[in-house]
Formats: sequence, C-alpha cells, structure tokens
Amino acid sequence: MTKLNIGILGATGAVGQKFIRLLQNHPWFTIKALGASERSAGKPYREAANWIESIPMPGSVAELKVRNCESAEFDDVDFVFSGLDSSVATEIEADFAKAGIPVISNAKNYRTDPTVPLLVPEVNPDHIDLIKSQTFTADGSGWIVTNPNCVVVPLVTTLKPLHDAYGIEAVILTSMQAISGAGYPGVASLDILGNVIPLIGGEESKIHTEPHKLLGTMTDSGIDFADFPIQATATRVPVENGHMLSVTVGLKTKADASEVENAMKEWQSPISELGLPSAPSFPIHVHRDARYPQPRLHADSENGMQTAVGRIRNANVLDITYVAMAHNTVRGAAGGAILNAELLVEKGYLKGE
Amino acid sequence: MTKLNIGILGATGAVGQKFIRLLQNHPWFTIKALGASERSAGKPYREAANWIESIPMPGSVAELKVRNCESAEFDDVDFVFSGLDSSVATEIEADFAKAGIPVISNAKNYRTDPTVPLLVPEVNPDHIDLIKSQTFTADGSGWIVTNPNCVVVPLVTTLKPLHDAYGIEAVILTSMQAISGAGYPGVASLDILGNVIPLIGGEESKIHTEPHKLLGTMTDSGIDFADFPIQATATRVPVENGHMLSVTVGLKTKADASEVENAMKEWQSPISELGLPSAPSFPIHVHRDARYPQPRLHADSENGMQTAVGRIRNANVLDITYVAMAHNTVRGAAGGAILNAELLVEKGYLKGE
Amino acid sequence: MTKLNIGILGATGAVGQKFIRLLQNHPWFTIKALGASERSAGKPYREAANWIESIPMPGSVAELKVRNCESAEFDDVDFVFSGLDSSVATEIEADFAKAGIPVISNAKNYRTDPTVPLLVPEVNPDHIDLIKSQTFTADGSGWIVTNPNCVVVPLVTTLKPLHDAYGIEAVILTSMQAISGAGYPGVASLDILGNVIPLIGGEESKIHTEPHKLLGTMTDSGIDFADFPIQATATRVPVENGHMLSVTVGLKTKADASEVENAMKEWQSPISELGLPSAPSFPIHVHRDARYPQPRLHADSENGMQTAVGRIRNANVLDITYVAMAHNTVRGAAGGAILNAELLVEKGYLKGE
Amino acid sequence: MTKLNIGILGATGAVGQKFIRLLQNHPWFTIKALGASERSAGKPYREAANWIESIPMPGSVAELKVRNCESAEFDDVDFVFSGLDSSVATEIEADFAKAGIPVISNAKNYRTDPTVPLLVPEVNPDHIDLIKSQTFTADGSGWIVTNPNCVVVPLVTTLKPLHDAYGIEAVILTSMQAISGAGYPGVASLDILGNVIPLIGGEESKIHTEPHKLLGTMTDSGIDFADFPIQATATRVPVENGHMLSVTVGLKTKADASEVENAMKEWQSPISELGLPSAPSFPIHVHRDARYPQPRLHADSENGMQTAVGRIRNANVLDITYVAMAHNTVRGAAGGAILNAELLVEKGYLKGE
Repeated sequence: MTKLNIGILGATGAVGQKFIRLLQNHPWFTIKALGASERSAGKPYREAANWIESIPMPGSVAELKVRNCESAEFDDVDFVFSGLDSSVATEIEADFAKAGIPVISNAKNYRTDPTVPLLVPEVNPDHIDLIKSQTFTADGSGWIVTNPNCVVVPLVTTLKPLHDAYGIEAVILTSMQAISGAGYPGVASLDILGNVIPLIGGEESKIHTEPHKLLGTMTDSGIDFADFPIQATATRVPVENGHMLSVTVGLKTKADASEVENAMKEWQSPISELGLPSAPSFPIHVHRDARYPQPRLHADSENGMQTAVGRIRNANVLDITYVAMAHNTVRGAAGGAILNAELLVEKGYLKGE
Repeated sequence: MTKLNIGILGATGAVGQKFIRLLQNHPWFTIKALGASERSAGKPYREAANWIESIPMPGSVAELKVRNCESAEFDDVDFVFSGLDSSVATEIEADFAKAGIPVISNAKNYRTDPTVPLLVPEVNPDHIDLIKSQTFTADGSGWIVTNPNCVVVPLVTTLKPLHDAYGIEAVILTSMQAISGAGYPGVASLDILGNVIPLIGGEESKIHTEPHKLLGTMTDSGIDFADFPIQATATRVPVENGHMLSVTVGLKTKADASEVENAMKEWQSPISELGLPSAPSFPIHVHRDARYPQPRLHADSENGMQTAVGRIRNANVLDITYVAMAHNTVRGAAGGAILNAELLVEKGYLKGE
Repeated sequence: MTKLNIGILGATGAVGQKFIRLLQNHPWFTIKALGASERSAGKPYREAANWIESIPMPGSVAELKVRNCESAEFDDVDFVFSGLDSSVATEIEADFAKAGIPVISNAKNYRTDPTVPLLVPEVNPDHIDLIKSQTFTADGSGWIVTNPNCVVVPLVTTLKPLHDAYGIEAVILTSMQAISGAGYPGVASLDILGNVIPLIGGEESKIHTEPHKLLGTMTDSGIDFADFPIQATATRVPVENGHMLSVTVGLKTKADASEVENAMKEWQSPISELGLPSAPSFPIHVHRDARYPQPRLHADSENGMQTAVGRIRNANVLDITYVAMAHNTVRGAAGGAILNAELLVEKGYLKGE
Repeated sequence: MTKLNIGILGATGAVGQKFIRLLQNHPWFTIKALGASERSAGKPYREAANWIESIPMPGSVAELKVRNCESAEFDDVDFVFSGLDSSVATEIEADFAKAGIPVISNAKNYRTDPTVPLLVPEVNPDHIDLIKSQTFTADGSGWIVTNPNCVVVPLVTTLKPLHDAYGIEAVILTSMQAISGAGYPGVASLDILGNVIPLIGGEESKIHTEPHKLLGTMTDSGIDFADFPIQATATRVPVENGHMLSVTVGLKTKADASEVENAMKEWQSPISELGLPSAPSFPIHVHRDARYPQPRLHADSENGMQTAVGRIRNANVLDITYVAMAHNTVRGAAGGAILNAELLVEKGYLKGE
C-alpha cells in the first residue's frame, strides 16, 4: 500500500502536536505539510512550536517549514487533519474542501452541518455517506468530516449498546475533565491546583446536542436524530489526561445492571473486522474493580483509544448509573480524527494520487 | 454565662483535632478532657497526637493527659463530642449516655436509631425533642445526638428550601470529595495525585438514606421520613477541603431556575434569631459568577460553616440542576457537631452542673 | 491618629489584589485610589478586576473607579503602594516620586538604585535614610522605597543573625517556589501539575545580588555592600503559597548547628519595640520537628509575615545547612511593602496632610 | 540463548510490582517464582497483590502461587531479584545466598558490606569482581549484588564523567523527590498535596556515603573509596515519578560549564558496546532548553533508564552547578537491578542450569 501524504492544520497547537505524536510512525499516513498561523509560517517547525508533548519532537517534522493555512500551499497532500481553533476553522476548512482537499477535522465548526458526518467509527460508520451530499466541489473531491467533543466520545460509545438494545429515554451526567482539554496554556495553575471548577464554557451545549446526531439514523434525506433529553454539568479537575463521566440513564425497555453490563461487554463494534491501525481491540472495557476506571491508570489503555467503564449499578432514579472515562486528547480529539481517516481510507473516500 | 466543660472522644484523630481547633476560643465551651485509644491514654496530648492542623497545637490542650474513652474517666465534663471511629463508637457512646453524659457525635453509628436526632440546626431543629424518647438513663440525663454525613449536609441544606416550597420528587447527584474526608493518613498520595477515584466505600448508602430522616416530619411517634429517591455517585478528587456536589432535582410543584434561586436566597433559617456562636450569618450563599463555588476559594467562607451554591439552571431531565459545596470537616463534621451542641444549650438540653 | 490615604498602582494584578486584601482593615491606612492600565481606567474596580483572592472583594473597593496610573490623578493620597509590572514601573514610579507622592514599591526596577532603600524592616531599617539622597523632588517630598524579591526575604531574614554573629562567607541555595509567585494567569497548569520546573526566568540574578545590599552597611556615601558569593537554583513546584529554601552557608567565624540555632532564636529584631501593625511577633520561628516547616502548614503563620526555619544541621560542605520558608505574596511582596510603609510612618517619613 | 528463570522477593510491594512490569517481556529472564510475606504465601498473585501499576497485571504472573521468601521454595530459579523491605532483607537475602541462589537486590542492607558490589553498570562495572570475595557459599555459587539509593543513581551517573576528567572536591545537593519513592501506601495525600516536605527519613545518610563506594577504585583488597564531602537535603514534592536534583560541585581541576557539558556529552559508558537489553542508548542526556529536564516530561525517557541533565552553569560558590533527574523506581530501583543482572549475565556470573 502506498502511504498517503497528509497535512496538519493548526500544527503548533496542543491538538496539532498530538496529531504529530500519534502519526509519527503511522503505517498509512506520512506527514508532509504543517500549517499554522501567519506568525509561524515560514519558520521550521522546531522554532515555531512550543513543544509540550512528553516525547522529543520527532525529527521528521522538526525541520519542516511551517506553511500558511491556505489550500494553495497544500497541493502536495492527499488530505489534511485539522486541529484549528474554532475562531478560524470555518473559513479555512471550507477553503481546503473547496480546493478538493478533504478535511478530517477536530474543530466544532461543521459538526452541526447536516451534510457533514459527525463520526465515531464504532458508533455510526454509515454516516460517512453524508459526504456525498456535500457541495464544496462539483466533483465531490473536497469534503469535511468531524469528530465530536471529547466528553461526547465516551458518552456515545457507552450509550450506543444501550440505545441499540433498550432505547435511551434520558441521560444525566457530570463530567470531571482533565486540564489538557483546555489546550495550552489553557487553565491557570492558580485556578485548578487542589481545586474543582464547576464550569467549562461552551462544553455543556455540545454534550446536550452532539449525541443526538451520532446516535441518529442515516436516511436518504440525511440523519434522523435520536430524541432524548440530556442534562450535563461539566467540571474541571486537576488531572492531566482523561475525562471521567458519572452517567445516569433512563431506558425505554427496562433492563438491570447485569443486563446492561452484558450489553456493553457483548457489543460488537461494526468496524472490528476492518483492522484499522488505530482501532482499539476493545472499544469498551468494563472494569469489575469498583475503584476503576481512573484517569491516571487507564487513560492510556490501548494507546489512549479505549473507553473504560465501571460501577454499572441499578439506579434509584432513572434506571442505570455508571462511570466512563476516555483519553480526551487522544480518543476524544486527535486519535479519534485519525481513526476517522483510517475508516475513510478503508471505505475508499480517501486515497493517494 | 458559665462555660460548660466538655470532653472530646477520639481526640487524636483528624476529626478530634478539628474539634480542638474549632473549640480553642469557644465562648461557651472549655476543653476539659481528651479521650483516645489505650495506646494514647496516659500520655500528654502533645505526645499522643500526630498534629496535622495548619495552626500550632493550642497550648491549652498540649499538656492535657489523654484519658481512656470510658465514662468513669469523664465525670468532670458536662458533655462530650465524639469523633470516634465507627468501629468503636457504638459501645463507647452508649457507655457515656448510660452514665448520664450527653454525647454529641459525628460518628455514623446512631444516625439511623429512631430515637436519636440526626441534626442540622438550620434544617430540622425540632428533631431534638426525639431526645426525650431515649432510654439510656432513667432520668433522661444521658443521650446521643448525631450530625449527618459530610455530603449530606450541603445536600439537605440546599434541598430544604425546595422541599418546603415545592416538594422534592427525585435527586441525582455526583460528589467530588476532598481528601480530608478520609481522615489521616487516609488516601494514599499515589492513588489521588492528578487522579479521580470513582468510589468512596460506604458513602453512597448514607447519601441515599440520611436526607429522608433529616427532611422528615417530627410526630408524636417519631420522625415521619421524607419519601423520594436519591441516586448518588461519590468520587474522590485531589482537593484538600470542601466537597463539591453536582445535583439535579425533580420537584413536585414545578418551578424554574429563577424561582428556585429566589427560594434559596429568601429562605429563612429557623435558628437565625438565636445568635449561636458557630452559626453562619447566611447558611446558604448563592453565587452569581458561574465559575463559583470552588472548594479552594469558598470552603472557608463564614469560618467553614456556609454552604455555597452556584449554577442554578433549568434541567433537561428532572427540573433543576445546580452545584453545591461545603467544608467537609468543618460544616460537614466537627463544626456541625459544635453547632448542634450550641442549639442544645440554647434549648436547655445541655447545661453546666 | 489620623489615617493616611493611600493609592495602589497595578491594583488589578495579583500583587495589587493582595495589597487590597491585606489593607482592608488596616488601622493606619485607608484605600482611597486604585490605579491600573488604560484598559481598566474608568471602570469600577468590581468590573475591572478578575478577583482571585479567596475572600470576597471588600465592598469598600468594589465601587471605586479605577484611575490611570498618572500622578495627576492621585493628588488626594498621601502615598502609593506599587504592584506595577516591571515593564512599566520605571516611568510611572518616577512620575509619582517627582510629583511628590512617595512610592512604596514591590517592583524590581529601583531596587538597585544606589539612592533607593531595598528594605526589610527587621534586617536593615537604618537604610531608610537613603531616602534623603533621592532627587526626584527639590523638597524631598517624593521618593521611592522598595522591598526585595520574594526568595530574598526569607534568605536575608535568616542570614542576618548569622551575618551579625559570625559573618557570611558563602551561600548555596535551591528554592522550591510556589505558583502564586508568577502572578495570574502565571504558570500553566499543564506545565506544573505533578511536576517540577527547574527554571524561573530572571529569579536567580536577583537572589545573587539583592542580599548584598540588604546586608550592607549604611555609610555617609551610601550602602557599603556585603561581600560574599551566593549560588542559587530557583525551581517551581506545585504549591499554592510559600517559597521553600534549602540553604547551605559558610561562616567566617565557625559555629555549629546548635550555636546557629540559638543565634536565630535569640536574635532581636530591631523593630520589635515599635509595635508596627503588620510586624510579626517573631520574625523567625525555628521549628524543632524535622518535618517542618511546610508551605501548606506554615505559610500563613503570623498572618503570612513570619519566616519559618527548620532542620538546622552541621554541613559536610561549607558549615551550616537549613531550610527556610515564607509566604511569597505576603511577606515576600505586598505584606512586606506594607510593613515598609509602617516603618516609614513610625520614622516620620510618611505622614498625612 | 536459553532464558534464565528468575524469582522476585517482595513481589507484592511497589518495587516488586515494578520488577514484574519491567520483566514482563524480557528477552533473557522469565518470571518463575514470586515470594512475599506469610500473609500472601499460598495465594495466587492476583489475590495477594494490590496491583498499583498503570498497566493491567500481566497474565503470566496473575495465577502464580505466591511463595514464602525461603530459599528452599526457590530451587527452580537461577537467581532472584529482591525488592524486600529493609526490615527483613538482611536475613532473607543471606538465606538465599547461602543456598547458592544469587540475589540481585534493591534493598539497602548489604550496600555497605565491603564484599558486596554496589553497582551502576555505567559507573563501576568492574566492581562486580568483589563477588569473588563473598563467602556465603564454599563454591561461590551464592552471592549478593546491590544497586544504590534512587537519588544516588542520577548523582553518581553525572558525577562520574567529572570525577574521571577533573576530580570531585565537594558536592552540595538538594533533591526534590517523587512520592513513588516512598512505596505504597507511602506518603499520605494530606501531607503532600500542594506541599513540600523538607525531610525524607534515612535518605540523606545514603546520599552522603554511597557515592564514595560507587566512585571508588577496585583494588586487590577491595574498594578504595572516593573521598570528598557531600552535603544533601532531601525533600518530597507532589510528583509521581522522577527525582529532581539540584547539584553544585567543586572540582579538583578547574573547568568551566562548557567543558563540563562536553565532558558529560562525550562521556563513553563502559558498557555501551555490550548491547544489554535494558541499557539506555544514552545513559546521560544533556538538555539545552533551560526549562528541562522535568520529571513529568522526561522521567520515562529511554524507558525510564536515562539520567537527564540540564542547566549546567558556572557556580559562584564551588565550581559548577546543574540539575539532574532520573526515574526513581525504574532507573533508581527495579530497572537498575535488572540492568545489573544483565551485566552479570554478560560477564558470566549469572547463567542458567
């Protein structure tokens, strides 16, 4: 197989750096181009980035000259990953799509666009056919696919088996989110050291809405959204990586904790046979030890791509309660986007020249 | 007013030390006697205790000789505070009550006893008359009063105005609890540094049941319990002091967030006129800044005796959602017990010889 | 005594907020005016400041209209405290001094000026007479006094008794500094959570030089600097308040650990008789428990104005080694400046109109 | 090559678990036997251990039945690693050595024995010939080799090139040590969260003495110790893994910072040609970024086996100052012991039956 040449937009930011780290030895993708703001453009990446990952900057990118995030400068790549800030993603991503360069984006800007797949490969792989309804280019060569908010990933991954088996009636959750979710410099240490902040601006509205699209049904006229209320409180805790969720769920068809646990354990990922390089062997792991999962112990499980579940119990209010946790900047951001790209290669949407 | 002489049982533990700190300049109570396990008995307190409070050990207790926790050794006190471990509290507290020495206890052992008040002065002050039904002594001189679990205190304090105004139908909550709640040495740093532990053993069952007694109605035949389901998930976070709660409530009579906020703000504490030394001027403070409350900023408000509330919103599931926070070892433990004692003095249950 | 009216320059920053907190009930000083950057000027302080102190913003300042940091706008104050950033302090402080408004500054800009006292009242109170050599105004009505770097305060406070008794030959130290020393937002949580950063930009050069002026001798021609080498490594640790120092000292006249401990304990502060409101009863406290001092337990001792010392031992290299700790934003910044002002009132340099 | 069968003594403790983790896929060694205290003996390891590593317990050990730490129960292994507590290591390790089972120990008990190598392969590989002077068995089949204290490892690794090139005259250091160094449960979170503790019991005496043996010269009559004074202050900081050292060194032959940096960079490890499986490619890495090394970013470099150095500067007192950091439970404990065993295999001291 010929490797695809890829670009990374927003390459100097926290998500961009995570893309670089995760792609450094990727079997299918080669980093060919890095894009960042005007301030960085023209400099070698080594100089432009304040590298914050805990591994040394890969030598293969250190000397790459950073480009402006303009499609004209990226004609040598097969597609781009976007870790762009939402303040600039709308225009830049459209520019690339219109130029025939597919965009696999972590930004929120196009998630609610009815023609743009909001994709978690294990949850709604069939949604990728929405791509055909996109009109960025006449020949369909340019398009956008997005991955959801970092809390939504473990949420829908654990709701999916229940939605399929019993139907979801209502969800209440409280998230305890890691600082890496705020990017860099992000949360001031004076604000979070030994503390909990009960607000993450803009987070709850995404949690309230994105699951409905992800769990929706693909129809000829687009996604038929799932329809159940979600109530979220998003808090920040002094944890480096791994968002923890405390979730309580009402089910349409009643089921008890052991049935729900079995539903999660026996659930078959629709992509498990594809052998995608970044796909976890087990997208969901149900812990039996009631002290688990914990972000520091389990965020890196299966290279940060697994959602961990624990404490599945019958609830006194609604039906079932459990905790779930996933790595917010891997599974919930860059790693999720890479898995999206792998599915799109497998399905023939992405290919080399 | 003559000051009452008091004893502290479990004086070397974390709760016992907090009693000493809070009582060091108390206008009504003088620390006369300290009781601890056999290992400590006979030693000066200075030697017996591994002092962990952030103020120097008060000189007035440093040289007190630690006594065994036997009533016969405490005949010079008017009553005792108990910070005993639950593994020994049942027998020791009964021994004191039978000897005619009232016990104001922070232990959980007698909280569910139908004759023992489970007391938060602002919530259910009338429950103290349960004391009359206790049979430890023939003359009623010895009895036990308890304060609730440290999560239950901010929970019932904020539910009380809603219960009175609208009726509670259901409650779902997730707690993010401080490490000081586990005593000393308590939580290992390797377990909690940069981490969240989604289990606190034994905690949730207390949260599920104690509010029903606290919000119950005093009748001739005892407490008529409140009746609504509660679903709690108790987690530990790397915070020193202050338990944070994310609470979602269903109401019997519907009300929106602004009505609920007003109900909390306008709620009149039934003990506000009594001028008890440890009573906060405002038992509930409603923060308007959506980033608040935060344990590190607000746990010490009103000397650690205030419950802070924030983010009151209409909920997509059930009716209302908010966050609440209180100092777990002050308001939720030693300080709460001291306020209980003050109410009992005011109401004539506790007096000097 | 008539209270003096004071202004605070840089009032919205972290140091400015600490000034406000510490001055809220000051017996001698009344906050009359708050100055900040153009962006804040004209707004009520309540709106201009992102309040980060753990007490509510004092009502007395909340509605004060923030002024530009220009002397013309401060003609109603007797003097100003400066918490200005060093990038602007040189010009603004000179402007005030030239206008006849004394400046008690926490900024570093004038610390090395030979006519400006670098002052720790317990260490070098006689240095205040340097003021007379300042030429900002013809009549001597405007002048500047500074306090040292936050590490230097506990360093010189503990070196002073040794310098007097034995003479200092050399000093090696490593500091472990709290995050509050970097202001707000200051250190990114992603950088410091569960980590140590072995560099604090610009810090070591101040530690290498300021002690020589502070321990210098006042002569007719200015300060005759102390002369011994200092080698410092400044590191950042995840602590909220309190800089910890590990210090090893060579002495000119040899002395052992017990002699040094006695020298510190018996040392008489030259200002102890003055009864200055912010002066600690004991500027140095020598802990006997080898686990002490600790920033979380002892930074607030004597309202944050005490330097704590521990583990005084004979050293295998040089002569004596010990640890010292003081609250960096109180004793090491705003509180130190306030004590400087109190000394200057007492000595007649500062007075009301 | 036939793999050697090994046992682990103290297998349920923190060091024992690290041995298991590091050995799980070792090319030369197979875990055959696990020993622990009587309380654990007879149980499957899965039940006996409170597993605290952040990877799942390897399946290969989960069902191994834990044995008593008696040599008679270990006759099926070629040698043992010891992670025993020092309170029991003296007798148990002697028992194994006398039974002809070599002991590669992390315990401190035999480090000062003149016949026992205190070994860091890159520093003093020739010291292994001390084994020949051991008298545990008549035929030399049983013996003990130890690795040093976890602070001493990065200290001697960085001193070695300087000792060779210039001679060491004196060393002053302050360590900032991770909580994992205290084992499990180890440091109470209430003691260390947001804090620094300026004492680690028993640590400094090891730092003061072990380097002299490690940097000593092998002679016919044993080790001729290096002779220079060391002064250490050992502190605990809220870091999970990685001990940071701030070191100042006096040199016999003067050299400046750039010469010292070159000496470290050009230093050739005497075992670099051996290709030992756990040996880092670069035992010392000199960081040029003055913010580095940092424990959270660099403790895992080269699988936790590399010592990182930074901030090499000329010192105002003594000659040279720098910071150094290494993973305390890998390079400084279990990983160091495994590397010792690998060297001993290579040199023919350890072999299969």
